[in-house]
Amino acid sequence: MKSTFCCSGTEPAPWLAGLRAALPQAQIELWQAGALPADYAVVWAPPQQFFDEQPQLRGVFAIGAGVDALLKLRLPPHATLVRLDDAGMAVQMAEYVCHAVIRHFRELDVYAADIRQGHWTFRKPRNRADFPVGVMGLGVLGARVAQALAHFEFPVLGWSRSAKAIDGVRCFSGSAQFHDFLAASRVLVNLLPLTPDTRDILNRATLSRLQPGGYVINVARGAHLVDDDLLALLDSGHLAGAMLDVFRTEPLPPEHPFWRHPKITITPHTSARTLRETSIGQIAGKIAAFERGEPVAGLVDREQGY
Amino acid sequence: MKSTFCCSGTEPAPWLAGLRAALPQAQIELWQAGALPADYAVVWAPPQQFFDEQPQLRGVFAIGAGVDALLKLRLPPHATLVRLDDAGMAVQMAEYVCHAVIRHFRELDVYAADIRQGHWTFRKPRNRADFPVGVMGLGVLGARVAQALAHFEFPVLGWSRSAKAIDGVRCFSGSAQFHDFLAASRVLVNLLPLTPDTRDILNRATLSRLQPGGYVINVARGAHLVDDDLLALLDSGHLAGAMLDVFRTEPLPPEHPFWRHPKITITPHTSARTLRETSIGQIAGKIAAFERGEPVAGLVDREQGY
Repeated sequence: MKSTFCCSGTEPAPWLAGLRAALPQAQIELWQAGALPADYAVVWAPPQQFFDEQPQLRGVFAIGAGVDALLKLRLPPHATLVRLDDAGMAVQMAEYVCHAVIRHFRELDVYAADIRQGHWTFRKPRNRADFPVGVMGLGVLGARVAQALAHFEFPVLGWSRSAKAIDGVRCFSGSAQFHDFLAASRVLVNLLPLTPDTRDILNRATLSRLQPGGYVINVARGAHLVDDDLLALLDSGHLAGAMLDVFRTEPLPPEHPFWRHPKITITPHTSARTLRETSIGQIAGKIAAFERGEPVAGLVDREQGY
Repeated sequence: MKSTFCCSGTEPAPWLAGLRAALPQAQIELWQAGALPADYAVVWAPPQQFFDEQPQLRGVFAIGAGVDALLKLRLPPHATLVRLDDAGMAVQMAEYVCHAVIRHFRELDVYAADIRQGHWTFRKPRNRADFPVGVMGLGVLGARVAQALAHFEFPVLGWSRSAKAIDGVRCFSGSAQFHDFLAASRVLVNLLPLTPDTRDILNRATLSRLQPGGYVINVARGAHLVDDDLLALLDSGHLAGAMLDVFRTEPLPPEHPFWRHPKITITPHTSARTLRETSIGQIAGKIAAFERGEPVAGLVDREQGY
């Protein structure tokens, strides 16, 4: 087999070296226009030209868990699309979300502001039961996040397209139960895949259904969130705040109001980073399994979009 | 039986109402000088006069997990001293410590500073294996904190006076293994009881043994830490930072350098607050069990000091 590695937006040398070490039997090269046909591709944000030139590809392995950007391209019709199923991202996501929920619930920002002003203050402890956390999307990442939140004894709810069962999590599914899920949540964590069905899903109508004092944590994709609707609900006071790691345009444009909004905390798409060593090991394993005709985890259903 | 409630530093009315509702058979009153003799006392920071006037007390129930301040008083010789064993504090402590560790490990403060300046930056993800977290003290709170950290896949070490075994935690014990424990830790979480043996235990000699770039989280008592030694090791660069919730004098005096040190984050003794409802229920249960002659959790060994 011949694997062609194609990757834009990432320094390719260490990926090439790692994949060559992990798959010594494969011929692994950086893609260039006019390259010879390959069996497999390992990609992050490749140009359309890459797929146009490689229609024979059998497998396309994404360096990431979200494949919405890839699915916007015309892919080789017979290629199997495979995403990372974890590669160290789930625990990072659990860290990021738990940090955000704890910081909000425990009012650590308020304490920090008091300390900056030299004030030693006490605040009445809040009741954990008043902060049910709803997790949208219960894949590998969402399930891990929900379990981590349950470990801290928050009431945890989950919502997914198809019904799931997770210990310690009150699970809702499908559009029929979406409103009930929202109404039972105060903190909302978005970990959905971005598909035509989920684009703009965090909007004025849905976010208004959260309990008063709602808090939004978006760690999936910027296009899930209607920015102006979030701002309006923060201004009206229905929402207490938001922590956002993903944006419609990244980097977030300098003039965007999220940069300096007092109720919004932003981070530069850093909630769960692809860890190179772990990812290389996982992708190499997937390619080898695929080559042997064995089942491969993380197969993308192009119709579903994830 | 007659229980006398005595409490300074806390609004007594809701405690009295709660204890009366939970122990309808008991006579529960706020202590005043010259009050009639009581069987049991529920106390937070009582004056010496209280114990001097109530030598017949059979049980003293502390509204807290740390009893170092109580043990400085002359207590009735035959009174059993009982502390809270959890009462919702363990999960709060797990929250506080995990938040601190994640914030440091994930460099969220650095990202926040970049964002404040309008910079969208990436930093190379750090390796979790390079951040072993050592937890000093493996009682109810320490064990819970260690398990929460293990949930986030940090290498977790524990140290306690007597040997303990906790799933997923590499346990050290006794003075013979203290230096090995320190040398294997990069982040150090202090949850020890304050006793003559542990006073000043976080000092130049011990903190110097942490791995370079060490980070100190003190959530036990201020007197565990030698303030000037921490400052010297932060200035030398051996330590990267500290998050401190407890101090030798509280509130922290306005002139104290911890208020504005760039590598120190402080909070006003808020890591684990006594939750009134939960504590009342627990103390009422302990008093009732004690009255029935049944075993009571949280008995303090005055010799050990906890």
